[in-house]
Amino acid sequence: MRAVVLHLHGGPDVLTIDEVADPVPGPDEVVVDVVATALNRADLLQRMGLYPDPRGVTPEIPGLEFAGVVAEIGARVSMWKPGDRVMGIEAGGAHAERIVTHERQLLRVPDGLDFVEAAAIPEVFLTAWDALVLQGGLTSGRWALVHAGASGVGTAAIQLAVALGARVAVTCSAGKAEVCRSLGAHLVLERSPHNWLADAQSAVPSGFHTVLDVIGGEEVDRNLQAVATRGTIVQVGLMGGGATSVNVGLLLGKRATWVGTTLRNRPLEEKVAVCRRFATEVLPLFDDGRLRPVVDSVYSMEQIADAHRHMEANANAGKIVISVR
Amino acid sequence: MRAVVLHLHGGPDVLTIDEVADPVPGPDEVVVDVVATALNRADLLQRMGLYPDPRGVTPEIPGLEFAGVVAEIGARVSMWKPGDRVMGIEAGGAHAERIVTHERQLLRVPDGLDFVEAAAIPEVFLTAWDALVLQGGLTSGRWALVHAGASGVGTAAIQLAVALGARVAVTCSAGKAEVCRSLGAHLVLERSPHNWLADAQSAVPSGFHTVLDVIGGEEVDRNLQAVATRGTIVQVGLMGGGATSVNVGLLLGKRATWVGTTLRNRPLEEKVAVCRRFATEVLPLFDDGRLRPVVDSVYSMEQIADAHRHMEANANAGKIVISVR
Repeated sequence: MRAVVLHLHGGPDVLTIDEVADPVPGPDEVVVDVVATALNRADLLQRMGLYPDPRGVTPEIPGLEFAGVVAEIGARVSMWKPGDRVMGIEAGGAHAERIVTHERQLLRVPDGLDFVEAAAIPEVFLTAWDALVLQGGLTSGRWALVHAGASGVGTAAIQLAVALGARVAVTCSAGKAEVCRSLGAHLVLERSPHNWLADAQSAVPSGFHTVLDVIGGEEVDRNLQAVATRGTIVQVGLMGGGATSVNVGLLLGKRATWVGTTLRNRPLEEKVAVCRRFATEVLPLFDDGRLRPVVDSVYSMEQIADAHRHMEANANAGKIVISVR
Repeated sequence: MRAVVLHLHGGPDVLTIDEVADPVPGPDEVVVDVVATALNRADLLQRMGLYPDPRGVTPEIPGLEFAGVVAEIGARVSMWKPGDRVMGIEAGGAHAERIVTHERQLLRVPDGLDFVEAAAIPEVFLTAWDALVLQGGLTSGRWALVHAGASGVGTAAIQLAVALGARVAVTCSAGKAEVCRSLGAHLVLERSPHNWLADAQSAVPSGFHTVLDVIGGEEVDRNLQAVATRGTIVQVGLMGGGATSVNVGLLLGKRATWVGTTLRNRPLEEKVAVCRRFATEVLPLFDDGRLRPVVDSVYSMEQIADAHRHMEANANAGKIVISVR
């Protein structure tokens, strides 16, 4: 099969397309013919050598999510048969024509969605739902604060919060407010030069029950100021840097929780658990149109370097999808 | 009744003993004749004007815990009758001959303990148990790390961890290691000049599932290094300062949780909930001797200023009790 392979680490030019061995399914595993995959910040970090596949597999193929058709099943597989439309997450290897994964980690493609749309779902909706609901305790009636509202995770988080009956404020960079509003955000705060914190506190004086932050850096201290008593800050990324100074007194006084999370380095049983709950609690919301993937752009696998450059320019609103076949 | 009253904020000399009005019970409340009470760091902060009673009552009477005899009950009280031996926590007002509290917040005095011993229980055992178990998820088999092992909270935390089948490492200042060992600590790490972090990591390479920290300051970064994957740091105090610089990347990579907590500023329903669970899950461990209060010293109410000075000198191992009558 053909796959995006990293022989070196560095800029987008290190990305090459190679012929590599086809994956073979273990007894509980499924091989999927990937029709579309998508790009994540983690792929950019991995390309630069900063975020290796935790499994240490070679050759090094990036790619954390995929949508496609079941091609082959292991001897004990009972949930899927060849031809089924599926999507899923993996710790790497999705920027390829085929991928192998555990059957219980797979998700069905929601009714009425094509593979390009489906490939825009797994990473950002699983991440946003796990962060907001499972780790952040968001429920109906409560306020969430989501940073980078026009990012992949941000566009998923806005829709999820609205669908669950919660209210959601987002921060975004200049020019991306309209995308956030169109998805249902109740309060859109353009970041610098505006002081989003003062505007957020004035709009939601009791603070935010759940803060979903992919940025870190300078936002960390503001998050502690914005979070409600007994609220939770879920740290999903550190695009703005990880070393920062904090006022721990706010954590104590508010009895707040600050939790770090990633999907990629979880063990199988945790990934399966979150995927199965997602299948039950979130996929039906795609079937009836209450959630929809937000596709920014579609690149072919041959254009993978351009796709990386597009994300590096921070020019996307929603997901950058890679069409594989 | 007589009570310790703060007319001014400042050093131990501002503490005076005054005659004040007796408390009157509401329909669900109980008035307790306080036989003994105890001193907490919060009382020192309150005396300095840094940690006021959240209820804003006047005159300002410090004191967060008490043991004594039920003197009077409100019309709807069903759990207690005059003469019952009780103990409990309140947001203030315990350094007095009488205190009023909600009946569901009271705890019975364990079998065989006198009031001086009982007064040494509520704050530190509730704090340590809530932090280790309810917030920190400590279970049998797991490792806890407890800072300030010879403090009131530390001596309670060591015993609780051992009683639950967990293992516990503690840090302590020089000269206090023997107290910690005698309570059952599995690993005792004297703080500076020793590098406790390296010793802790070498003894427990997988890290600590639950870290109970009353210090903050410089320990914050070490806590993030010492905590296990998916572990929890429970921040119970900030004796070493609250403004600090952290590497949030560790929180993310370990998918760790950092939660701030205090007992004092919780609403009634939360205090009642933790007290009722404590009554069921922890009080029996005192009855059969698996837990015991650690009394450092006993002062009379007239010696309250000396008691404050003793705690300020960091000279205690276990609780400083105030005998009221």
